Amino acid sequence: MILARVEGSLVATKKNPNMTGNKFLVVRPLVIDTAKAKEFKPGASTLVVVDSLGAGEGEIVLVVQGSSARLAATDKNSPVDAVVIGIVDTVDLGKQILYHAQ
Amino acid sequence: MILARVEGSLVATKKNPNMTGNKFLVVRPLVIDTAKAKEFKPGASTLVVVDSLGAGEGEIVLVVQGSSARLAATDKNSPVDAVVIGIVDTVDLGKQILYHAQ
Amino acid sequence: MILARVEGSLVATKKNPNMTGNKFLVVRPLVIDTAKAKEFKPGASTLVVVDSLGAGEGEIVLVVQGSSARLAATDKNSPVDAVVIGIVDTVDLGKQILYHAQ
Amino acid sequence: MILARVEGSLVATKKNPNMTGNKFLVVRPLVIDTAKAKEFKPGASTLVVVDSLGAGEGEIVLVVQGSSARLAATDKNSPVDAVVIGIVDTVDLGKQILYHAQ
Amino acid sequence: MILARVEGSLVATKKNPNMTGNKFLVVRPLVIDTAKAKEFKPGASTLVVVDSLGAGEGEIVLVVQGSSARLAATDKNSPVDAVVIGIVDTVDLGKQILYHAQ
Repeated sequence: MILARVEGSLVATKKNPNMTGNKFLVVRPLVIDTAKAKEFKPGASTLVVVDSLGAGEGEIVLVVQGSSARLAATDKNSPVDAVVIGIVDTVDLGKQILYHAQ
Repeated sequence: MILARVEGSLVATKKNPNMTGNKFLVVRPLVIDTAKAKEFKPGASTLVVVDSLGAGEGEIVLVVQGSSARLAATDKNSPVDAVVIGIVDTVDLGKQILYHAQ
Repeated sequence: MILARVEGSLVATKKNPNMTGNKFLVVRPLVIDTAKAKEFKPGASTLVVVDSLGAGEGEIVLVVQGSSARLAATDKNSPVDAVVIGIVDTVDLGKQILYHAQ
Repeated sequence: MILARVEGSLVATKKNPNMTGNKFLVVRPLVIDTAKAKEFKPGASTLVVVDSLGAGEGEIVLVVQGSSARLAATDKNSPVDAVVIGIVDTVDLGKQILYHAQ
Repeated sequence: MILARVEGSLVATKKNPNMTGNKFLVVRPLVIDTAKAKEFKPGASTLVVVDSLGAGEGEIVLVVQGSSARLAATDKNSPVDAVVIGIVDTVDLGKQILYHAQ
């Protein structure tokens, strides 16, 4: 799985019929930069993920990709390859708390 | 899923028999560059995707990859790994509209 | 799917029994560099693909990857993850023809 | 599979019901830099993996990704795409021992 | 599939029970650098693969990744995502022999 920050959302009226009812979030994968004070830095790509947990902008989410994403979708026949499976509360690196949701 | 801009199309006469009837689009994956005024920038790769939604050149589409792409194909036995599942109308980042289809 | 140029071939005598009879091509994934006159440039990786369409050196092929590659293999039990599903005739970008097979 | 160093852990209270009971580790994929004295260097990404083997911070683990990760999960219906399948004792490069767990 | 050079091996005593009996090799994916005299150059990552063909250090192997790797595993229930499916004898680029196993 990867960590990603929710940056926005997306609307597509013309879409595959099995995608109806899904909420699309635009997210940015995150990398933990241990060399530089153990902070998050944005990854090199942008993903669109389906969310049913109610993640909001700015939150950090756990995203599953590939065929396993279908197991996390509300409709198992949805052609999805990236789904939010958790909203992150804390990320701990050793004794340091890297992230704590507000 | 990823966002991609339709750049062109492709013809292959000699092909796998299960690919007959598919329309191939050449697309460029997009990255949202939040550091630089929240605009799209082209990704580092080029993909060929199958489209049955009628996406046209210049439009931004939502592309599913991997085994889930087969669920979005007209023929479930088509050996495809990337299919258009939506034509994007708007992308919102917070209160800012990054993209609005014309 | 990706576009790739056939660069050579490969022989492996000692191999998985379910790979017998397959022809292996060494290919280079291609990226369309729209910033620089819309020409192909080589990608950062090298792939080995199975081909049953008779693609020759220098030709541009359409390659499917992942589990869908098995659907395109002659033997569905072959442990393959990349197969040629088309030999490209033309790639059009808008009104410009980027590539036309000779 | 890839080699990765355990860097920390993660808590997500709000999550997919099939993820309950899983322990999430934050890991950094490793690359062996043969040009520079054959030592590990951190890769360019950060992954979150599920662990049931009891790996601790600083340890090097073997991670399986994709659909095969589900075979390594305690619950086969968990929507996971990366699971620890081994805790590495030694990595040998020729006659040199690159890594030996303490 | 990808080409990779065998660089070493790995031992993990504490592992998933379905991994018992597998031999793990540490390999480096290879890229053919056509711009520079058509020689191999090391890729940017390190992989751990399962091998049952007896590949030795320094040899170049053909590696299948993803779900297809399970078809090449001795035990179909092994949670593997990368398996050696061939030991490469020769790689030909046009009339030039790039590699010939000794």
